[in-house]
Amino acid sequence: MEEAAESSVLAIDLGGTRIRAAHISPDLTVSHRVAALTNDEAGVDAVVSRICEIAAEVLGAARAAGLPEPIGVGISAPGPLDRERGIVIEAPNLAGWRDVPLASRVADHVKLPTFLERDTNVAAQCEWRYGAARGSRDAIYITVSTGIGGGIIADGRPLFGADGTAGEVGHITVELDGPLCGDGQPGHVEAIASGTGIARAAREVLAAGGAPRLAASLAGAEPDARSVSEAADAGDPACLAILDHAWEALGALGASLVNLLNPEVIVLGGGIAVHRPEVIERFRDGIARRAFEASARRVRVAMAKHGDDVSLIGSLPIVIDRIHRSAAARSATGGVPAGDPAPLQRRTTT
Amino acid sequence: MEEAAESSVLAIDLGGTRIRAAHISPDLTVSHRVAALTNDEAGVDAVVSRICEIAAEVLGAARAAGLPEPIGVGISAPGPLDRERGIVIEAPNLAGWRDVPLASRVADHVKLPTFLERDTNVAAQCEWRYGAARGSRDAIYITVSTGIGGGIIADGRPLFGADGTAGEVGHITVELDGPLCGDGQPGHVEAIASGTGIARAAREVLAAGGAPRLAASLAGAEPDARSVSEAADAGDPACLAILDHAWEALGALGASLVNLLNPEVIVLGGGIAVHRPEVIERFRDGIARRAFEASARRVRVAMAKHGDDVSLIGSLPIVIDRIHRSAAARSATGGVPAGDPAPLQRRTTT
Repeated sequence: MEEAAESSVLAIDLGGTRIRAAHISPDLTVSHRVAALTNDEAGVDAVVSRICEIAAEVLGAARAAGLPEPIGVGISAPGPLDRERGIVIEAPNLAGWRDVPLASRVADHVKLPTFLERDTNVAAQCEWRYGAARGSRDAIYITVSTGIGGGIIADGRPLFGADGTAGEVGHITVELDGPLCGDGQPGHVEAIASGTGIARAAREVLAAGGAPRLAASLAGAEPDARSVSEAADAGDPACLAILDHAWEALGALGASLVNLLNPEVIVLGGGIAVHRPEVIERFRDGIARRAFEASARRVRVAMAKHGDDVSLIGSLPIVIDRIHRSAAARSATGGVPAGDPAPLQRRTTT
Repeated sequence: MEEAAESSVLAIDLGGTRIRAAHISPDLTVSHRVAALTNDEAGVDAVVSRICEIAAEVLGAARAAGLPEPIGVGISAPGPLDRERGIVIEAPNLAGWRDVPLASRVADHVKLPTFLERDTNVAAQCEWRYGAARGSRDAIYITVSTGIGGGIIADGRPLFGADGTAGEVGHITVELDGPLCGDGQPGHVEAIASGTGIARAAREVLAAGGAPRLAASLAGAEPDARSVSEAADAGDPACLAILDHAWEALGALGASLVNLLNPEVIVLGGGIAVHRPEVIERFRDGIARRAFEASARRVRVAMAKHGDDVSLIGSLPIVIDRIHRSAAARSATGGVPAGDPAPLQRRTTT
């Protein structure tokens, strides 16, 4: 990994609301940022074209500024995806996205090897290599935001699982008969402690005539995690109870992860964790009350260091590693890529 | 690992009730079995002496029979333990066991390199190398018995975590306000679905005057998983409800493991899983209802192949691997063991 000190990459973060891209320098400087609304109603091809245009725009600006040429492109996208083949299998927040060969389409456009990773795995790599989990061999990253997701580092390596879908920390069952997730399954921590889960709980309370303070502040609008938090801060008992339940579920998640994976550090990120300082305290408290004493005493819980940029910066080590692995595979097989079919400059779709 | 095909080991399984030992041949033949009651009330030194005697007895018999000399000794013991240094940190089921340097004491006695591993990790290795998870790279072993424990194989390697305590699948929270575990923590799956958890639920029902069929069959004795199962089979509604709750909790555990670790196969073992055929069905059903569809469809759930011998046979690859690692570390450091201080023939305690 000596080249980590000298390679730059082009990073793209595909979100349900926004597409962001930037040039990432070896010293982690994020420059030539470009962002656009995802606007997925325009269709898959329109979004893919927009991603390609944004990538080309960042590349052009970085070249004009005399920055080092990126050795490749890293795309962060919501799962489930096929990271080896660079295909978005399904994106619940992007209308019509099914089996989209995103990496090859971007590679065709920018003429650089392009790799796709789940956004939370990219964030986990960022915090593990350069952030709050730096220097550890066993770490977990958790984002608490509209949804709850994460990434696992086990014994010094990212943990992907059999199909690359490991790390879905938001879909751990913490209540056998709990509220239903977006995917219809009961009691996942995401259904209780995510922005979506908090909003759902508030809608139920409002429908039953509760949370008068929240109802007054909303004046007919839909509740969200922010309005529930504000009403709780103003003393609304129902909103306080909703948040208490959410933080308790998060603490149980933390304890389960400690008992199951025995991490050295757990890093919290995402809007809700960042904006509610009690989240990290309640998370630590849940671990202390619900996990084995020895492991609970040992684990460090820290806030993410790189904020919104985690899913951009994390592409730096990922692209470098994957290019190295491809090169190693090619030289081992006499020129034929094995395993990770990296430089995706061939067109696999039209 | 070529030597795996030609090396034998001496395996010891230290349980709360029994100590078992045997010679394990390269073809997995378990021979010259010796067993004794653990009888931990006699004190730590008495138990350690008994382990040493049993080990020497197996060794003598195997030598007399002309079997290949074991290259080392593998001890399976309940956690938490320090696998690198061969120390039992604490054994909840063994009175007085705290910081016992078991590996070095056995090594001193039998004059063979000796290694300690958590029993459920030994079982996981057995099923992964030679049993129901053979050929997979991502597998989980779960034992459902008096307690619930397990071991994880991730990307072709056992997962130990920062302190070697990873894999405690029984201590995942499945109910925020569920019954208390032996360690006083609420809602762990072990408190609901283990033999101990089932017995506790039955005691509560009996104390409230319920489960008349069970009460009649017990005639004043304490309930256990077997008596609850028999009463359920005879139609006792309260016992049926206790088991239903237990299997539901196990299914939720399975789903959480699938979403978190994306295994290719989950292997079930232990007395309760073996004796109640509905356990595997309910486990699969829980995964189908509570995990992501794609991962749930893909994961295979199988019964353990090696029964009670899992925690003996699993010592074969563990001892071979650890001896190889020690040898590699010694040759890399010019004779000084680094990392895994293997051949523990020096006395570290008296």
